[in-house]
Amino acid sequence: MSENKVVRIRARNMADDALFEFLHMEIVAHMYKEQVTREDIDKERVTCVSTLELMGFRVGQGLIERFTKDCPTFKDDLDVMKFLCKDFWSMIFKKQIDNLRTNHQGTYVLQDNKFALLTQFSSGKQYLEEAPKYLAFSCGLIRGALSNLGLESVVTAEVSLMPSCKFQVVIQKL
Amino acid sequence: MSENKVVRIRARNMADDALFEFLHMEIVAHMYKEQVTREDIDKERVTCVSTLELMGFRVGQGLIERFTKDCPTFKDDLDVMKFLCKDFWSMIFKKQIDNLRTNHQGTYVLQDNKFALLTQFSSGKQYLEEAPKYLAFSCGLIRGALSNLGLESVVTAEVSLMPSCKFQVVIQKL
Repeated sequence: MSENKVVRIRARNMADDALFEFLHMEIVAHMYKEQVTREDIDKERVTCVSTLELMGFRVGQGLIERFTKDCPTFKDDLDVMKFLCKDFWSMIFKKQIDNLRTNHQGTYVLQDNKFALLTQFSSGKQYLEEAPKYLAFSCGLIRGALSNLGLESVVTAEVSLMPSCKFQVVIQKL
Repeated sequence: MSENKVVRIRARNMADDALFEFLHMEIVAHMYKEQVTREDIDKERVTCVSTLELMGFRVGQGLIERFTKDCPTFKDDLDVMKFLCKDFWSMIFKKQIDNLRTNHQGTYVLQDNKFALLTQFSSGKQYLEEAPKYLAFSCGLIRGALSNLGLESVVTAEVSLMPSCKFQVVIQKL
């Protein structure tokens, strides 16, 4: 095994630490905030999807901060997206995004043919309607990472056949 | 780097996958269950600590199932506790329990001098009252792991100086 590979494995371990710690912090923060706002629950009507998305957003922000500490700056948006598809995705989900497409006008489609958080479901169309719950957090991860790299975006996800999944990222021009 | 170490690092990576996936499943399940039971919230009055503990319990059950798949059986309770302190703890928190004590009557005290989920707080006594929230999940992890290994237990945690932490495990005789 090359020294390079060992270094990469070590980096991955550090990333895993971070992931678990941030995630844990978020769950706790959520649970306790919830207790406070229970009284005005009808007023706010926060949906589960947006709460999960926001958890992902904050975890994504935290992770990207650690991951890019020693990184050179990126030369353009596409460069950032490539980093996300290769390094960021590998560190979190242990595989790269399989396909990245763009219209060169700020819209990117990231396809993962075997998305880690859908592999616990049986393949095919049987549990398709369950999928959105399990993608909200990851949409947030992408949006949070991009936000910390200076790109505001809208991220949505789509599944047509488990466990494959497409994330659409639309960069918001300021 | 020895072949052994490489194998250990690989195993650790697999464990991290599992940890994140299970944790994520739990958050989602919790969020959606919550929506259903919001109406009878006053009837049930589930506290945050017990919800976090239950999340930990289920994650612990899932993880131990993967970790012990190829393991020999344990010869007694102490043997199980040693496995928990060394292998299980290392896989989750990247370090072993520093000290294990027992009265040989079913009570065990596990001391971690630098507990991963408390390291984000400044050391000392300043945030001591915040500690219990961040220990409930881990108490559940231990209880869940033990339960899947055939031992029912009561697990509590105590912090007197961050980031050090003691878990007390009392095995319930049937």
